[in-house]
Amino acid sequence: MTLSEQMTQLARQAKTASRDLARLTTADKNRCLLVMAEALDKNGAAIQEANARDLDAAAKTGLSGAMLDRLRLDAKRVAGMAKGLREVAALPDPVGRVLEERTRPNGLKLRKVSTPIGVVVIIYESRPNVTADAASLCFKSGNATILRGGKEATHSNRVIAETMVAAARAQLAAFPEHAIQLVPTPDREAIRELLALAQYVDLCMPRGGEGLIRAVAECSKVPVIKHYKGVCHVFVDADADLEMAEAIVMNAKCQRPAVCNAMETLLVDRRIAAAFLPKIALRLGEKRVQLRADPAAETILKSEIKNPKSEIRPATEQDFYTEYNDYVLNVGVVDGVGAAIEHINHYGSAHSDSIVTRNEAHANRFLAEVDSAAVYWNASTRFTDGGEFGMGAEIGISTDKIGARGPMGLEELTSYKWLGLGSGQVRT
Amino acid sequence: MTLSEQMTQLARQAKTASRDLARLTTADKNRCLLVMAEALDKNGAAIQEANARDLDAAAKTGLSGAMLDRLRLDAKRVAGMAKGLREVAALPDPVGRVLEERTRPNGLKLRKVSTPIGVVVIIYESRPNVTADAASLCFKSGNATILRGGKEATHSNRVIAETMVAAARAQLAAFPEHAIQLVPTPDREAIRELLALAQYVDLCMPRGGEGLIRAVAECSKVPVIKHYKGVCHVFVDADADLEMAEAIVMNAKCQRPAVCNAMETLLVDRRIAAAFLPKIALRLGEKRVQLRADPAAETILKSEIKNPKSEIRPATEQDFYTEYNDYVLNVGVVDGVGAAIEHINHYGSAHSDSIVTRNEAHANRFLAEVDSAAVYWNASTRFTDGGEFGMGAEIGISTDKIGARGPMGLEELTSYKWLGLGSGQVRT
Repeated sequence: MTLSEQMTQLARQAKTASRDLARLTTADKNRCLLVMAEALDKNGAAIQEANARDLDAAAKTGLSGAMLDRLRLDAKRVAGMAKGLREVAALPDPVGRVLEERTRPNGLKLRKVSTPIGVVVIIYESRPNVTADAASLCFKSGNATILRGGKEATHSNRVIAETMVAAARAQLAAFPEHAIQLVPTPDREAIRELLALAQYVDLCMPRGGEGLIRAVAECSKVPVIKHYKGVCHVFVDADADLEMAEAIVMNAKCQRPAVCNAMETLLVDRRIAAAFLPKIALRLGEKRVQLRADPAAETILKSEIKNPKSEIRPATEQDFYTEYNDYVLNVGVVDGVGAAIEHINHYGSAHSDSIVTRNEAHANRFLAEVDSAAVYWNASTRFTDGGEFGMGAEIGISTDKIGARGPMGLEELTSYKWLGLGSGQVRT
Repeated sequence: MTLSEQMTQLARQAKTASRDLARLTTADKNRCLLVMAEALDKNGAAIQEANARDLDAAAKTGLSGAMLDRLRLDAKRVAGMAKGLREVAALPDPVGRVLEERTRPNGLKLRKVSTPIGVVVIIYESRPNVTADAASLCFKSGNATILRGGKEATHSNRVIAETMVAAARAQLAAFPEHAIQLVPTPDREAIRELLALAQYVDLCMPRGGEGLIRAVAECSKVPVIKHYKGVCHVFVDADADLEMAEAIVMNAKCQRPAVCNAMETLLVDRRIAAAFLPKIALRLGEKRVQLRADPAAETILKSEIKNPKSEIRPATEQDFYTEYNDYVLNVGVVDGVGAAIEHINHYGSAHSDSIVTRNEAHANRFLAEVDSAAVYWNASTRFTDGGEFGMGAEIGISTDKIGARGPMGLEELTSYKWLGLGSGQVRT
């Protein structure tokens, strides 16, 4: 079989499985998830064994320590996968929700109901636990999944997927064997082939570095939901409660700098810059946050802070587009909320941005005009997360405008259809 | 300027305009729509003059009579455009609707609100009235539009767009001049260039023949919402009220055969085929509908109808994939609702399909398992339409699963964002 034939078979099998999945009851799906969880627990030794093979091979290729850690599945992480599956089982079924209902003058009742999307391709990098998380969320939402993990996690991913599928098949005769599939080859060309099959594949969600996501978006002929990066901002307005602003800034930058909803740029209104910047710079200095300041901010910081605990240097324009994922922060001084909005819409990544202010008019303008997936008033950008939003689980975050935007949980893995319930209506 | 630079400028202007549009109030938008309508009325002579130039040129290139008719803007059609704009003004603003609201245990209030999408490219064929319809719907929903009509309608489209923009600018200083733009060149390469600019363009909606739409979907790097064709089905179940079935079949096929929600294939349960097919064939014959029958249907029809009023011939497999847009109908006999569903999901276009039955279990199975944008029980497929759905106006119909599905009105031209309203919440 050529690669193209192989991918066509994979996608066609997934499409058939998606039709069968749409027929499973909520109880059936939950029962499958629970036995999958049990099987992951029982099969822990085999999973760790497969993972050890991946780790050995990865160490030989010189993978960094941080990457090896992401690849590692210890007993706790295996248990975490099983726990995740049980949590997904406990969540409400996102399929079949009545989103809208109306009766037309001719008596035709129209009902908009949520449906599975169909076939979802998930592309991700090294963490093998994503295999279980993504497969379970897609399964619960009635979607067939085709998973493409990092090639360094091949053995781990395979044993996780096989364990889940085998358990579900033993539990439920109607479980479609191709509901959860892995791309069987590490060939990069496979993705291009797969994502050309718009007649079978309904959605692709790439997760990982910007390079991976851009490559996927570039080649895909099927819809892609994604975020490239998180260049998130906090704007401290002239009318801010400065103590609140300090707490939000520290949280948005330092609580977990490596994640996409962490702040990369602090914007401060010129009228309170001299009052606020030295204080926050000292606190950031204690956390060893390097500051990259625009000229106005640099002037204030250099004149007020004589012995900085961490570097303060001029920001380049490129810095304001950059996601550091690290203890580095851009600092800019702007003239009011309008300038802050313009900066954010220009340099930001449309992910998560926050205004700190007591001024309701400023807040409302910021909330309305910042064109991002999540916009906060007096809260940290760090809340953009499926769990924090009460979605129960998250398969990703979208900065797109077609389909889901913001954190994506089970409901965001559904589409809808219109049902027309009549009593013989015809159009006149 | 190269074509690429020209398209970049066009798209960048649209993006800027979209930010300005997002700031207009509902009253401002409605006022603009009303003066646009007035201007179209007043400018009727100039519009018809420009249209006459298009018609002359088109007649010289040998455009068919039907195409010339679609291109023609008589006084009635100009008045129709103006009336359409007034209707859009009267519709509720789709932006700013609160779609969901929840308060998290930490007091953070999350509000999901509808927003404009941003920049929408509309590609369409000969009818110049689409220029006014599409521009007004996009404008009301706060989106900047880039319009690409058929090259045979160049003069008509230009004068319509210019009339609308000039009227709105005279009415409202804040009206962004690039809110409604036309692609200024007939060069086909322009579309490829424009649809590569995912940083500026948020959505493309192609309307027209399948060839046009496939070409757009093939080259686009921005999301495309579309339907390729309408291969719609009516399935007459064994438990159907056969009189109701007759009325629905006649309506779905004959009321307006050239539109996408007209029926192309009639499926009949084997158990009632002998009772139903001869009767319906006679009525279809009166309307000169050619029947293309599968072997079982052909056997019944040939043995029961001695002097058919219109041709009855064997259907090829390809026929069942075909949208005729004409007085032609495929007829198939199937074994029960399961086989009907399989046929529809395989040969159909996921547009609009109907079951006629008194059997609730059959209906529910059909409604759940037919994977189409609109699925009907005891009603004609012809209802898939923005007006019939009570949307007030329609910009297109989608058979996609990401973004809008089914008829698209104003609400379907919006995205959403999450607002997080706090009192200093930080993540712990």
